[in-house]
Amino acid sequence: MDIATVIGTIAGLALIMLAIVLGGSPAAYIDPVSMVIVIGGSCAATLTAFPLKSVLGLPKIVMKTIFVPGASPTGLITELVGYAEVARRDGILSLENHTEEMSDDFIVQGIRMAVDGTDPELIKQIMETELDNIMERHRQGKGVLDAMGRYCPAFGMIGTLVGLVAMLANMDDPSAIGAGMAAALLTTLYGAVLSNVVFLPLADKLALYDAKETLLKSIILEGVMSIQSGDNPRVVEQKLKTYLPPGERSAESDGEEAEAA
Amino acid sequence: MDIATVIGTIAGLALIMLAIVLGGSPAAYIDPVSMVIVIGGSCAATLTAFPLKSVLGLPKIVMKTIFVPGASPTGLITELVGYAEVARRDGILSLENHTEEMSDDFIVQGIRMAVDGTDPELIKQIMETELDNIMERHRQGKGVLDAMGRYCPAFGMIGTLVGLVAMLANMDDPSAIGAGMAAALLTTLYGAVLSNVVFLPLADKLALYDAKETLLKSIILEGVMSIQSGDNPRVVEQKLKTYLPPGERSAESDGEEAEAA
Amino acid sequence: MDIATVIGTIAGLALIMLAIVLGGSPAAYIDPVSMVIVIGGSCAATLTAFPLKSVLGLPKIVMKTIFVPGASPTGLITELVGYAEVARRDGILSLENHTEEMSDDFIVQGIRMAVDGTDPELIKQIMETELDNIMERHRQGKGVLDAMGRYCPAFGMIGTLVGLVAMLANMDDPSAIGAGMAAALLTTLYGAVLSNVVFLPLADKLALYDAKETLLKSIILEGVMSIQSGDNPRVVEQKLKTYLPPGERSAESDGEEAEAA
Amino acid sequence: MDIATVIGTIAGLALIMLAIVLGGSPAAYIDPVSMVIVIGGSCAATLTAFPLKSVLGLPKIVMKTIFVPGASPTGLITELVGYAEVARRDGILSLENHTEEMSDDFIVQGIRMAVDGTDPELIKQIMETELDNIMERHRQGKGVLDAMGRYCPAFGMIGTLVGLVAMLANMDDPSAIGAGMAAALLTTLYGAVLSNVVFLPLADKLALYDAKETLLKSIILEGVMSIQSGDNPRVVEQKLKTYLPPGERSAESDGEEAEAA
Amino acid sequence: MDIATVIGTIAGLALIMLAIVLGGSPAAYIDPVSMVIVIGGSCAATLTAFPLKSVLGLPKIVMKTIFVPGASPTGLITELVGYAEVARRDGILSLENHTEEMSDDFIVQGIRMAVDGTDPELIKQIMETELDNIMERHRQGKGVLDAMGRYCPAFGMIGTLVGLVAMLANMDDPSAIGAGMAAALLTTLYGAVLSNVVFLPLADKLALYDAKETLLKSIILEGVMSIQSGDNPRVVEQKLKTYLPPGERSAESDGEEAEAA
Repeated sequence: MDIATVIGTIAGLALIMLAIVLGGSPAAYIDPVSMVIVIGGSCAATLTAFPLKSVLGLPKIVMKTIFVPGASPTGLITELVGYAEVARRDGILSLENHTEEMSDDFIVQGIRMAVDGTDPELIKQIMETELDNIMERHRQGKGVLDAMGRYCPAFGMIGTLVGLVAMLANMDDPSAIGAGMAAALLTTLYGAVLSNVVFLPLADKLALYDAKETLLKSIILEGVMSIQSGDNPRVVEQKLKTYLPPGERSAESDGEEAEAA
Repeated sequence: MDIATVIGTIAGLALIMLAIVLGGSPAAYIDPVSMVIVIGGSCAATLTAFPLKSVLGLPKIVMKTIFVPGASPTGLITELVGYAEVARRDGILSLENHTEEMSDDFIVQGIRMAVDGTDPELIKQIMETELDNIMERHRQGKGVLDAMGRYCPAFGMIGTLVGLVAMLANMDDPSAIGAGMAAALLTTLYGAVLSNVVFLPLADKLALYDAKETLLKSIILEGVMSIQSGDNPRVVEQKLKTYLPPGERSAESDGEEAEAA
Repeated sequence: MDIATVIGTIAGLALIMLAIVLGGSPAAYIDPVSMVIVIGGSCAATLTAFPLKSVLGLPKIVMKTIFVPGASPTGLITELVGYAEVARRDGILSLENHTEEMSDDFIVQGIRMAVDGTDPELIKQIMETELDNIMERHRQGKGVLDAMGRYCPAFGMIGTLVGLVAMLANMDDPSAIGAGMAAALLTTLYGAVLSNVVFLPLADKLALYDAKETLLKSIILEGVMSIQSGDNPRVVEQKLKTYLPPGERSAESDGEEAEAA
Repeated sequence: MDIATVIGTIAGLALIMLAIVLGGSPAAYIDPVSMVIVIGGSCAATLTAFPLKSVLGLPKIVMKTIFVPGASPTGLITELVGYAEVARRDGILSLENHTEEMSDDFIVQGIRMAVDGTDPELIKQIMETELDNIMERHRQGKGVLDAMGRYCPAFGMIGTLVGLVAMLANMDDPSAIGAGMAAALLTTLYGAVLSNVVFLPLADKLALYDAKETLLKSIILEGVMSIQSGDNPRVVEQKLKTYLPPGERSAESDGEEAEAA
Repeated sequence: MDIATVIGTIAGLALIMLAIVLGGSPAAYIDPVSMVIVIGGSCAATLTAFPLKSVLGLPKIVMKTIFVPGASPTGLITELVGYAEVARRDGILSLENHTEEMSDDFIVQGIRMAVDGTDPELIKQIMETELDNIMERHRQGKGVLDAMGRYCPAFGMIGTLVGLVAMLANMDDPSAIGAGMAAALLTTLYGAVLSNVVFLPLADKLALYDAKETLLKSIILEGVMSIQSGDNPRVVEQKLKTYLPPGERSAESDGEEAEAA
């Protein structure tokens, strides 16, 4: 679990609530209609901009920035080197029996093709297409968060304009001007908070985890190709370890540290 | 039909109308002249910026984000593999008789050249130029939507400035100031709504469908080249399936799912 | 002539004038000093940013977005194929006598070098340098329009700040506040109109025509190289037609349509 | 030490304090709650956007822009040429005894691998991965400063909106309006100062030092590869000096000047 | 001398002064403290962002946009062809005696290495590193101007916020509000003028001259390599003239025109 994402979001919202409470009139900051306009409007614009499936996947995307996939590059390399040893000892066909214990579907796919005797060039091409598809899904997931981060302030401004026009059209009662303008500004406040506390930072965090996942898949791709070509397990390990920073290269069980990185 | 585009746009507009009605004076938000300035001005600027043909194509471009071309990559691959089988069985010349049943003009063009015995290198060059032209048309279509999304807020601001100067020049009657300012703000509101509810999200959606269409044309290009060179239908299928994500590779009739993606 | 550029610019200005007239006090919108600050200031900044020659070329650049060069790619290809036939029939030296009828100086340059027996590699290098120079000139022409589109709103804001300070420093007469503020806002209005109705859209249109001109010069470069190497006129035609979208490839006299595109 | 970073930051803050003191009411500018909202909120958003480790490294990153690593490219080249001479004279294995005097861990790593007889191709690949990792760390360090520079004004605006709503909701006492609005504007002021005096300039300075460090590591990589292949020390020197600007090429002890550059 | 830079900057400032004088209260626009905040603050931020040396070089950078280096590409080519003739006639060693008459240190460096019999590959590598260093210096010089153009408006806004808080905190005397707000707006005005009249346009002009200087150095690099390899002076000329636009290729003494371009 990425505690930083949770702490960051909660602390950001808590600080703003603190400021509101210290301001003395917290009730003035709650307006369900304003909330609906900003969140609903941003979701509507994002729905227009992206496929339904991507927008419905938003909660899952957000979860991905909190509950990080546990795999570490070093653990993954150890696993792949293990399969290389099995393939060396018992023949590549014997890997068929190890598919249930594989930590990633991408390994299973690759090993299956290798076991089936698929042409190496084709294995590579198929796995690279899959990698491209994963990166495209990442790009679209980040795109949805970015869009929310962009449309929230826009709908905040739209809500404020709606409120200002309503207020200006009814200026007969001067005492209502202050309250009307306060209400109008609320949507801008909501939009700014949602954008800067939630969506834009989450989009940045997601990009980091996406880069990490892409690295893992690249290691798998290289590992499967190396196993398929019958490389010595030592060679497989050497090849894969070039993906690691030197500090993690000799370590045995530093999965946790890598995860927190 | 892309139901997300329709729902998103309507929901966005409905939410803003709701906010206006709840504000209590919906009549204050309707001003035909303001509407004409924002929409007319944006269209005029877009007309200056793009060729007449591109701007007149705007409704067709918008339609493309709602009524999506039905072809799915898997269906297309099945079709191309079918032609490869015909070419294998009856010779490539026999494909001449199948042109009416081809789902895409781009297939017809390519197959015609192959049947005519055009040099493969030239077929490839011509089809790639055509692909470039399609991508250029996409880029220009998206460019028109982007321009509308950029000029709408600009003309909204221009309208507001015009209104503010009129109001400030006639401040003798203080009771008219509120109404004048409300009217001045309307164009900014119109510009922000059109830009954020309609044009910018549609431009994003269009980009996604353009990418999908480009993928389909790339599959056709690869397929025609493979058929032309007399590849075995199995090989044609394997080559083309590398364009698909693994999940869709073995499926037979998942056209619908691919379409919704 | 690109009627879209003319209609777009005039319609944009007309709509704003309409809004001003409907506002009831058109006289309040005319202020020569404000006009001088915005236009003069933007020109001064552009003069600082670009060479004198580029800025003096501004009217010529604007004209280029209205009076489009008449050459169409298909017409040009027909012309080049004609020279290839002459070269085939009477020898390449005979092209010397056709230089006055050539539609573009770039053809003349290229053919002259070919006739002089210049090394093909050198011809190509020189023509590519010239193409780079043309693209650099295009980039600078668009740069001047972009700069005007960027500096107009900036000087509009500077003018408004000057006006606001003047108004705020003389607040003894409250009745003059409205008029002072209206006058101050005028420069912002002028800047926004010039930028969004004139300069930014023209810069976009110019980019399109520049791309078209670059395409024409690329066709000439390819054609001259093909003629120089003694290619069969049929081959020259085939090579050059790959630059065209398929729809225009078989056409004989669609110059007009291509021009309007 | 980079005196420019220190002078720049202090002078920027001092000038703003001077302006505040000259304004006559310095007490009005101090508000701990506003300070907490801007700094706390920006840190929270940055924490959501980046890994915990990167954010905790912020003070270390800032220090890096003040206390610059002392190594100069010329000094480094002299050192590497020295090792090349030792390797030439006493054999590459003798370099094992010089590891404690090496100025950079990256040299030690590279030389160790060379001494261990690791395959040159693999040494290069591992050192390049490490270089990529260093550049990724740089990118993330600069990313944290950039994020702070972006979120500070955003939370400044959020704080001002919170303050404005509080003020507008309590307009019964007109005499409090001025003070309320002054307090509301404070967060915007804090955000603008932190962003423009501290975070954005520091991010720029950091990028310069990161580029310098990357140059040093590239020289080490080239030097180790050259030593490993048994190059003559003269050749090693010539190869490495191509990384230097000519002015520094013949100099012996201009480390200080290079550092100040 | 680039008269456009001088005219542009002076005309821009003169127009704004004209507007101020016509506004009737020029004294209200002069405030030394505001001037110090905007200029001092921008310099401080730029000092934090760049090395001391780069910031101290600011006046020299500005001078470079006014007093343009006189060398023209055609003159330079004539000079290099001359050295090629000398090398052809008297041997390359004789060029040693011509170093004092060479117009550019970069020629001297290159010729010296050629005379010393340095390996051509190494000459090229060293001269390319030097070219990279020159371009890096250019990039940093432009970076300083860009930073000033970015920080001036930011410190203008900071100054205005400081002024507004001071004004709002002392609203007891309503008659002072106008003057206080006018004073507050002054820093924004100063920042906008400095940025849009001086720094941003100068950064653009500098980029043009930097591109011209890079072209000259590239011609020298190509020329030295050609002389070193013993090319016939005719061949040297042909090679170098491909860097020129055709219009300047046959000209003998159009240095002046090229300079004004």
